[in-house]
Amino acid sequence: MPHAPTTKARKIDHVSFVVESVDEALRLYVDLLGLEVVKVEESELHGVKAAFLRAGDVMVEVIEPLGPGPIMDFLEKRGPGFHHLAYEVPDLEEGLAAAEAAGFRVVDEKPKPGIEGGRIAFLHPKSTFGAMTEMCDKKEFEEE
Amino acid sequence: MPHAPTTKARKIDHVSFVVESVDEALRLYVDLLGLEVVKVEESELHGVKAAFLRAGDVMVEVIEPLGPGPIMDFLEKRGPGFHHLAYEVPDLEEGLAAAEAAGFRVVDEKPKPGIEGGRIAFLHPKSTFGAMTEMCDKKEFEEE
Repeated sequence: MPHAPTTKARKIDHVSFVVESVDEALRLYVDLLGLEVVKVEESELHGVKAAFLRAGDVMVEVIEPLGPGPIMDFLEKRGPGFHHLAYEVPDLEEGLAAAEAAGFRVVDEKPKPGIEGGRIAFLHPKSTFGAMTEMCDKKEFEEE
Repeated sequence: MPHAPTTKARKIDHVSFVVESVDEALRLYVDLLGLEVVKVEESELHGVKAAFLRAGDVMVEVIEPLGPGPIMDFLEKRGPGFHHLAYEVPDLEEGLAAAEAAGFRVVDEKPKPGIEGGRIAFLHPKSTFGAMTEMCDKKEFEEE
């Protein structure tokens, strides 16, 4: 059988952890590991407080739920820890089409806006060997 | 209170996922995402089969247990998924000392040999907000 199309990820864009308190978690990422704080912000759209921390050319995202929603659900169900790893791909629609053609289960059929800009979509962890995987590109999100 | 000493992580060295089958997982990381296979090997010392996949300047490690041991225990208890994220620090003893001084719980009091060479030590996920965190350096491991 020929290989399914690849989307040729350029790099890891970011890795995301859910925590109970961003401020507490900065003790690890900033005070101990010395990562650079790019920004700390609250997103009403996503219902979270998030810190974006630079580690080389990868961003570490630390996310705290501010109210009910998927991040709060995750925290209550799984406890704090790894949430997802995001790969930058050249074009997200092509990446999603390649994923579906290869039999991966896609959570987001279409790109949605990223918390940090750009466009994102998740693959379902049941089909990615337990690891929640995001694909993203740097194109501007446009409502249809 | 003054900040505890920082170890100034240079970058993310690798991110590690436990899977039931490395060969199956390569469908995601190689066939779909197009990561470069650096090597696939079996380590008798660690009791695992591991694939090392390059994503920019970060390595993705995919680890399958070959027999009883901590990776098999992890898989049975938690299922497949994220295992740890490793930061490269300039000097691992200094990193461990900084972590202990800052109140983090250290799993490995002293450096141990990494599966890929170099020296590694883990911080306990209970003290790192649920995210198993490794510090590593590129120095040669020496038995005492």
